[in-house]
Amino acid sequence: MAATRRPGRNHLFIPGPTNIPERVLRAMHVPSEDHRSPSFPELVKPLLQDSKMVFGSTNGTVILFPSSGTGIWESALSNTLCRGDKVLTARYGQFSHLWVDMAQRLGLDVIVQDEEWGAGADPQKIEEALRADKDHAIKAVMVVHNETATGVTSDIGAVRKAIDAAGHPALLFVDGISSIGSLPFYMDDWKVDCAIAGSQKGFMLPAGLGLICISPKALKIAEGGTGRNDRLGHAYFAWKDQLAANATGYFPYTPVLPLLYGLREALAIVKEEGLENVYHRHHVLGEATRQAVAAWGLKPCAKEPKWNSDTVTAIVVPEGADAAKVITHAYERYNLSLGAGLSKVAGKVFRIGHLGDLNELSLLGAIAGAEMAMLDCGIKVTPGSGVAAASSYLRENPLHKA
Amino acid sequence: MAATRRPGRNHLFIPGPTNIPERVLRAMHVPSEDHRSPSFPELVKPLLQDSKMVFGSTNGTVILFPSSGTGIWESALSNTLCRGDKVLTARYGQFSHLWVDMAQRLGLDVIVQDEEWGAGADPQKIEEALRADKDHAIKAVMVVHNETATGVTSDIGAVRKAIDAAGHPALLFVDGISSIGSLPFYMDDWKVDCAIAGSQKGFMLPAGLGLICISPKALKIAEGGTGRNDRLGHAYFAWKDQLAANATGYFPYTPVLPLLYGLREALAIVKEEGLENVYHRHHVLGEATRQAVAAWGLKPCAKEPKWNSDTVTAIVVPEGADAAKVITHAYERYNLSLGAGLSKVAGKVFRIGHLGDLNELSLLGAIAGAEMAMLDCGIKVTPGSGVAAASSYLRENPLHKA
Amino acid sequence: MAATRRPGRNHLFIPGPTNIPERVLRAMHVPSEDHRSPSFPELVKPLLQDSKMVFGSTNGTVILFPSSGTGIWESALSNTLCRGDKVLTARYGQFSHLWVDMAQRLGLDVIVQDEEWGAGADPQKIEEALRADKDHAIKAVMVVHNETATGVTSDIGAVRKAIDAAGHPALLFVDGISSIGSLPFYMDDWKVDCAIAGSQKGFMLPAGLGLICISPKALKIAEGGTGRNDRLGHAYFAWKDQLAANATGYFPYTPVLPLLYGLREALAIVKEEGLENVYHRHHVLGEATRQAVAAWGLKPCAKEPKWNSDTVTAIVVPEGADAAKVITHAYERYNLSLGAGLSKVAGKVFRIGHLGDLNELSLLGAIAGAEMAMLDCGIKVTPGSGVAAASSYLRENPLHKA
Amino acid sequence: MAATRRPGRNHLFIPGPTNIPERVLRAMHVPSEDHRSPSFPELVKPLLQDSKMVFGSTNGTVILFPSSGTGIWESALSNTLCRGDKVLTARYGQFSHLWVDMAQRLGLDVIVQDEEWGAGADPQKIEEALRADKDHAIKAVMVVHNETATGVTSDIGAVRKAIDAAGHPALLFVDGISSIGSLPFYMDDWKVDCAIAGSQKGFMLPAGLGLICISPKALKIAEGGTGRNDRLGHAYFAWKDQLAANATGYFPYTPVLPLLYGLREALAIVKEEGLENVYHRHHVLGEATRQAVAAWGLKPCAKEPKWNSDTVTAIVVPEGADAAKVITHAYERYNLSLGAGLSKVAGKVFRIGHLGDLNELSLLGAIAGAEMAMLDCGIKVTPGSGVAAASSYLRENPLHKA
Repeated sequence: MAATRRPGRNHLFIPGPTNIPERVLRAMHVPSEDHRSPSFPELVKPLLQDSKMVFGSTNGTVILFPSSGTGIWESALSNTLCRGDKVLTARYGQFSHLWVDMAQRLGLDVIVQDEEWGAGADPQKIEEALRADKDHAIKAVMVVHNETATGVTSDIGAVRKAIDAAGHPALLFVDGISSIGSLPFYMDDWKVDCAIAGSQKGFMLPAGLGLICISPKALKIAEGGTGRNDRLGHAYFAWKDQLAANATGYFPYTPVLPLLYGLREALAIVKEEGLENVYHRHHVLGEATRQAVAAWGLKPCAKEPKWNSDTVTAIVVPEGADAAKVITHAYERYNLSLGAGLSKVAGKVFRIGHLGDLNELSLLGAIAGAEMAMLDCGIKVTPGSGVAAASSYLRENPLHKA
Repeated sequence: MAATRRPGRNHLFIPGPTNIPERVLRAMHVPSEDHRSPSFPELVKPLLQDSKMVFGSTNGTVILFPSSGTGIWESALSNTLCRGDKVLTARYGQFSHLWVDMAQRLGLDVIVQDEEWGAGADPQKIEEALRADKDHAIKAVMVVHNETATGVTSDIGAVRKAIDAAGHPALLFVDGISSIGSLPFYMDDWKVDCAIAGSQKGFMLPAGLGLICISPKALKIAEGGTGRNDRLGHAYFAWKDQLAANATGYFPYTPVLPLLYGLREALAIVKEEGLENVYHRHHVLGEATRQAVAAWGLKPCAKEPKWNSDTVTAIVVPEGADAAKVITHAYERYNLSLGAGLSKVAGKVFRIGHLGDLNELSLLGAIAGAEMAMLDCGIKVTPGSGVAAASSYLRENPLHKA
Repeated sequence: MAATRRPGRNHLFIPGPTNIPERVLRAMHVPSEDHRSPSFPELVKPLLQDSKMVFGSTNGTVILFPSSGTGIWESALSNTLCRGDKVLTARYGQFSHLWVDMAQRLGLDVIVQDEEWGAGADPQKIEEALRADKDHAIKAVMVVHNETATGVTSDIGAVRKAIDAAGHPALLFVDGISSIGSLPFYMDDWKVDCAIAGSQKGFMLPAGLGLICISPKALKIAEGGTGRNDRLGHAYFAWKDQLAANATGYFPYTPVLPLLYGLREALAIVKEEGLENVYHRHHVLGEATRQAVAAWGLKPCAKEPKWNSDTVTAIVVPEGADAAKVITHAYERYNLSLGAGLSKVAGKVFRIGHLGDLNELSLLGAIAGAEMAMLDCGIKVTPGSGVAAASSYLRENPLHKA
Repeated sequence: MAATRRPGRNHLFIPGPTNIPERVLRAMHVPSEDHRSPSFPELVKPLLQDSKMVFGSTNGTVILFPSSGTGIWESALSNTLCRGDKVLTARYGQFSHLWVDMAQRLGLDVIVQDEEWGAGADPQKIEEALRADKDHAIKAVMVVHNETATGVTSDIGAVRKAIDAAGHPALLFVDGISSIGSLPFYMDDWKVDCAIAGSQKGFMLPAGLGLICISPKALKIAEGGTGRNDRLGHAYFAWKDQLAANATGYFPYTPVLPLLYGLREALAIVKEEGLENVYHRHHVLGEATRQAVAAWGLKPCAKEPKWNSDTVTAIVVPEGADAAKVITHAYERYNLSLGAGLSKVAGKVFRIGHLGDLNELSLLGAIAGAEMAMLDCGIKVTPGSGVAAASSYLRENPLHKA
């Protein structure tokens, strides 16, 4: 008789949502609570303060929206920009593409620098565009830090240098949805004006909480700019209602209580591991994955080593093979969830997400599974080669620095 | 030594968020999952279908947003209306006030019919306004079904009749956040075009999921109206991306997984109890509360019996008493969370929410607590009178019809 | 259509198992773990140490058995006594009766002092019996501290004085299953030799963990007495295997992991509230219950005020009424779980348990429910009288001393 | 800064407790409940009936004790045997050794057939011993089905044939703690008289529930034999109190509520997968593990293939290596929990448990981890060889038969 239940757990290796630590799941298992009670600010205030750490900021202001990360894209744009404003951005994957699309739908005039999928933002081209913009018509530069679709990490520090080199006053908006909390992110150092994050990646929570960290500069523009800002209509994602309520430890509308408790626990976990340890661990696990890819004789989607993402690796299957089949087979036969290739790279790549609450042996199980799925689908790789290469690397490179 | 922990559970009698059944809390305790997996639509499709039942609709289309109810207000307006459009609404409490405010901030031209706080929407005045609007400049009528601030339920069926009597084509938008799932709501019968709900009231879930049920008429306007609609800029709350993804059982962005599983369980619970039983139970608990208020010699904020809400009772404290003190004392001494008076009625009323997953003895505990808190604050009520009256009523009136 | 689900929560007012705090439920939601791991003792050692606090002991040794409280009765007897040994005990309710029965089945020679159901152990009679036992044939005195069946608390301090006054070396075994963690219990002061507890009462956990606290004197007898002890055959409940493993922070057989984590959290809760606060709160809630009983014109099963239990009140229904009907009706109509009369008092009493994690308004809800159930069953009590009396008392008497 | 938290999950590969499916953990997250309520039997009765399926029995009677498996050993012996009774057993590992020890401590006269550790019970020797016992002094044959310490499974069907061939009336007691629910077990076919199980292995629950399935023959002896049975004193583990209460759907003492709800869910899971599928899956995962061991050039503790256990593999490390070091290192460096060698094989073997709710990729992660730990400890195995061999086998052998 065919089983109607699959044994064991699902192996989740998509680039988000990520595995939620059991501690966090437990912390979210809470009854309803009066979000106007006298004791509620004891929960809220530390969250707003402590989550700045993950953004690498002490100067910024964090707002938590009941929303996915997509909403936070909108919040950044709609609080600071006006209909018709010029923004500059680079596009090199599905998520940078979608952000461009949103900006256009909101009525912005988007200057798009298209890069090859597999490359990232080009600081030099950004600098040139800004230098050319003598009258400072460009109000903001938008960059997706980690392009989840291709496994590419752009260099935000270099983008900041480019803006400074051009002497341009544009705001810098960074989508850090699949990087913040996993990859080094230094909001204050990089003078990021809006850093955008979602709960379901490095924060190790379910989706549902959108986080934005706002620089004093952006805040000032949002507050002062009513004369102009009323042109980008918005209400739900407005900062001012949130800020007014947050000041006393409350929210303007009913918060997603379980996610607040989950965030508290997740921040505790991040502190216990140490942010620099978290970053190092992601690097080690990313590199182990790349060792496996190399041992298989395959290539990552990232065109050059400098673009390699430590949160997700997109792997290009050989000519003639169908990555979509590998993904479906891995799920159906081995209960392994891999990320699909999106849009331009659909069918050409599968992705292994290696971010969030993860360790060596979980990753090795996934590498073994990807290998088996490829073999079953007729892709010739040497059995055991991926695990052998990754495990040799991992034996030499502990997850945390001593 | 002073205790740093309060024994027993909090008694939550605010008008939302409501108590979450343990079954629902359990159902939400889930690991992360690939929201693009082949099996994901098995979860999603029934949710979109079954939740229509709670709206009293078979013709409508439900969309689920990661958002609080406030966002759904915006979604209704921004998908159907254009900058400068006229809308007609009545205002009689804090939530109808806030919706007006949002509409204005979004650039709509809002015609406000102010009613006394404690009354509801006046169908006759609505009819008159629509009759006077010969050229149909009014594009929508917005009504808050249950004004949570004052414990007043408006008669949506009568509003519909008024619109029909005026022969006016305006859309009908109803905020059912604190009514849907608790009070009789018949979207199709009342020809509501956008019915707005939040997960944290009658759906017995945490906040974080905004639900909208859309009539075919509204849907058509949203779809066809690109020529006009681009004026109310929006992206996150746009229906079209959701509808496109929903069609195959997916979402355009990462969903709040625990709330989806919670919704599935909550819908199962509603079916097991039966919607008409749910409505009847809310009526019985509401009436029991009113019996207690009468026995105390106090008056509800609702000016006439026809406005009485079966989900929340706002109780006016005697002249000279401070309702805010009663609320604080109830919380600090008896761990009872009552709703505060908001805005115009701050300090004058306290509110007992009696909606969601609730039965007789929980309510009687809260009535006892409200009485004790009033007595402690110097409000003269006869000890035991509230519970005596409410319990006598409850003995005669079972929660469910035989 | 008849509902197949009951709305709201069950009101649990039996004398155990008691309500489990949500924090404890969360703490128990844990994956499996290697109970032989190097880090396991970090969990175990503090439990063994900290749980002594609840017994009022610093000299004692606590052992945790995967077992209900019944098993701990056996553990106390079988580790210290030999087949045919004489033991002295008083019997005044179902649980003291069952312990006698067990002792007899284990082959002990039990001298039973029968007291009226509604009274407790009589220290004077105990002293007399011990004085008469010139050759010290009686090896142990067994007393049920709190007789759950009748709502009677015996005076263990007075029993100790009686033993001392008689100059008798008998061991003192106390069943504190429904008292320890709720009523004052001072193991060291009272020189109790085996104090017996179960997880499901004052420890606010599910059943499944039996706790015994053993005096040095009892331990010495158990260890040294091999020549004699082999007569009461036992293995599972033997102390020596447990003690040997406990010494290094392990257990001789697989422990009930969730209950260990639950115990850790429960002990933290007890510390946060403070044991003396816990005792005071139980007294206040017990007295409030008795005020309600008096206002109803009814009598407790406890024959004299000195026997009143602060964890459970057994209420005698009027001649001609059937307490069993009240209990069934309370459950079916109001979802209120009351305790039944057992054995001799079946049908004559119903019981309200008021122990564990409880506060005023929960108790008042139950009192209201008991009153309604009695009225529905034809027992004439004044509507609201019980809640009025209890709430007046509670307003004057805070749960915790200032 | 050193991290105080380990990232990711623990990889639990001890031979029990096993991984608890998330569904089961959720099902156990329940509030307290009145175990005397009218509706309680709706929970209990199906458990007692359905759990027989896992024992391969329709004739037997299941009793659930709040206890670990060790207690069930005692329950089997103490309900059927008398002090001084002769029992026959084979000893070939730590658990068969401990059962012998218990039987001796309970006062039984134990005839022990010692087998090499790595072998199992020898049916021929059992038959000979029984044939020699002309006057049927041997009252029971005790066999440990799966010796967890050495990874050896004995052939119970062959033992039954041996008893029958000898024409001996002895009872057959089988410890199925680490086999029942994982390995084929056919209680009725094998005419087992007491089958002993614990919740923490094939039942995929925490420890804390001991299960015994009793044949009609054993039941009759227990019931009728009072004249003799009083010699093995017992009370807690007595069957008669349980059976009397079970008959109406209750228990004689407070049950471990979460484990009852967990058992209900676990039985549902077993049904959904199908018992024969469960058995086949364990065989496939066991064989995959053995393929890895062979690829490493190592040997299992089981002396011959026929002894191989499909729930646990004990792996002998090369002369000079210390298995204890491998285990400690695997835990500390890779968060992998392996089973230790016990007693005679301490330091010589480490064990991989492959039972319970498990699938291919989890096992491959553990195999990778064991390999890395061995390499780190100086044991020369070819990197990747274990995973390569196991994964090749697993690609060819699906967990479930088509």
